[in-house]
Amino acid sequence: MDFSSWMSAIQERTERALERLLPAADVAPARLHDAMRYSTLGGGKRVRPLLCHGAGEILSAAPEALDLAACAVEMIHVYSLVHDDMPCMDDDVLRRGKPTCHVEFDDATALLVGDALQSLAFQTLAGPGVQTDAARQISMLHLLAQASGSRGMAGGQAIDLAAVGQQLNVRELEFMHIHKTGALIRAAVLLGAHAGNADDAALDSLSHFANRVGLLFQVVDDILDAEASTATLGKTAGKDAAQNKPTYVSLMGVADAKRLAADLLREAKTALEPLGPRAQRLAELADYIVQRTY
Amino acid sequence: MDFSSWMSAIQERTERALERLLPAADVAPARLHDAMRYSTLGGGKRVRPLLCHGAGEILSAAPEALDLAACAVEMIHVYSLVHDDMPCMDDDVLRRGKPTCHVEFDDATALLVGDALQSLAFQTLAGPGVQTDAARQISMLHLLAQASGSRGMAGGQAIDLAAVGQQLNVRELEFMHIHKTGALIRAAVLLGAHAGNADDAALDSLSHFANRVGLLFQVVDDILDAEASTATLGKTAGKDAAQNKPTYVSLMGVADAKRLAADLLREAKTALEPLGPRAQRLAELADYIVQRTY
Repeated sequence: MDFSSWMSAIQERTERALERLLPAADVAPARLHDAMRYSTLGGGKRVRPLLCHGAGEILSAAPEALDLAACAVEMIHVYSLVHDDMPCMDDDVLRRGKPTCHVEFDDATALLVGDALQSLAFQTLAGPGVQTDAARQISMLHLLAQASGSRGMAGGQAIDLAAVGQQLNVRELEFMHIHKTGALIRAAVLLGAHAGNADDAALDSLSHFANRVGLLFQVVDDILDAEASTATLGKTAGKDAAQNKPTYVSLMGVADAKRLAADLLREAKTALEPLGPRAQRLAELADYIVQRTY
Repeated sequence: MDFSSWMSAIQERTERALERLLPAADVAPARLHDAMRYSTLGGGKRVRPLLCHGAGEILSAAPEALDLAACAVEMIHVYSLVHDDMPCMDDDVLRRGKPTCHVEFDDATALLVGDALQSLAFQTLAGPGVQTDAARQISMLHLLAQASGSRGMAGGQAIDLAAVGQQLNVRELEFMHIHKTGALIRAAVLLGAHAGNADDAALDSLSHFANRVGLLFQVVDDILDAEASTATLGKTAGKDAAQNKPTYVSLMGVADAKRLAADLLREAKTALEPLGPRAQRLAELADYIVQRTY
């Protein structure tokens, strides 16, 4: 199977799994469930599920187990987008080419959508079918919780908030992104690996890969935000500059940011070498992250 | 030990455990951690931790395990208060006698405080020391996630939002409270029981007890909101009536609401009978919930 077919297949099975895991839109409270489905289904590149499956396939994890881990991470990601778009945060009206949750519904519903998606992520990862080894499943839950919390993604958002209008250096910007984006990207990769009973050596290689990819993802995001149009992105473009937010592009310029991206890509692929040819999907995914245009 | 000393002892050890589990206020991101500690520490009756310890003691659970389960539930409770107080929800300025989190800090920080507290709850319950039986620990995580989510507490909030200005009957009001308050109260009791390796019969009795106590708690809350002053409550009194929210008092009047509370209290105690004299603390707790004045 070529990469593009593999990617479509994973995106499709992720969509089906999310469909199944989210409560139906006619189950009470219907408006909340409707809004949870609106925010989660039918969009998104599903980068984290792709990383989760890519890592899990190296360790021969069961695809059904990877679906659950991938959906748990994606639910955390979607909840963070819904909250991040709210008026008290980024106040954004467009996401994945559609009105954001609080615009389509209302602020209170968006708040609860995010809250309930976070709970559903842990419920999914604590459910049956994730791992036959219960102790390892607990590690997976601990890993996702840590990656989501105040010293992971939510903490990154807080650092981001504090950074608006500030002069950061590249080191401080990196610290922010390691939390804001990196922690969950790393969780996606490691949860896939844990679903496949990875040993410490494999976890080490994958952790190193994920750290590079997490930063890579953000550098590319900053380049896209500076260069692409709103129509292509499906979300408001040029927003970082407009909000006076520090980015890799504002700190080092587009040319150096692109060089940094190339370095990170090379390092990410080097980290995969000990894993052999089965790591090909993850290498292709790293390429895809650099080449994507939205 | 008499009930009042027992209660103080549990409240104190809960406070110490929360102190220890929350990141220090000087750890980055410092403002977020400061706000998490502000919202969580030094206040609250700790009803859920008391229920958790009361149930766990019946099954001889280790006090240290109960601390972790109790703190996990309390973190979920506190996150819900922080989000519930935000301008897009109840827009309240006073909680536990202090300015609410978004007033003391800002809306974005309050949003992230709630988000990060939810993650920390699951991180705590997925940590070491909760249960030696890993499969049972996973059930505990699943239970807490379900109780917190769209068919538990967050769902109850959504039903509550939809009910503002609506004519509900007692059955609909009960449906709302079973989700909004009842689900987490039940989780507190059952997590305590699971920490002590409860069998199905004990879980059944405790589940029945918790369902009655959850409703009891809300009926008493409605009576207090109608009768008490803001100074005594430490939160804004008379708010439900002002917001035209349906309550047990608005639906059935104070006298009938008090009769309902007496019935629920009797049923809760009956549910404890199969558990023998060790259930005394839970019976006393139910009495305390009825007698509390704030």
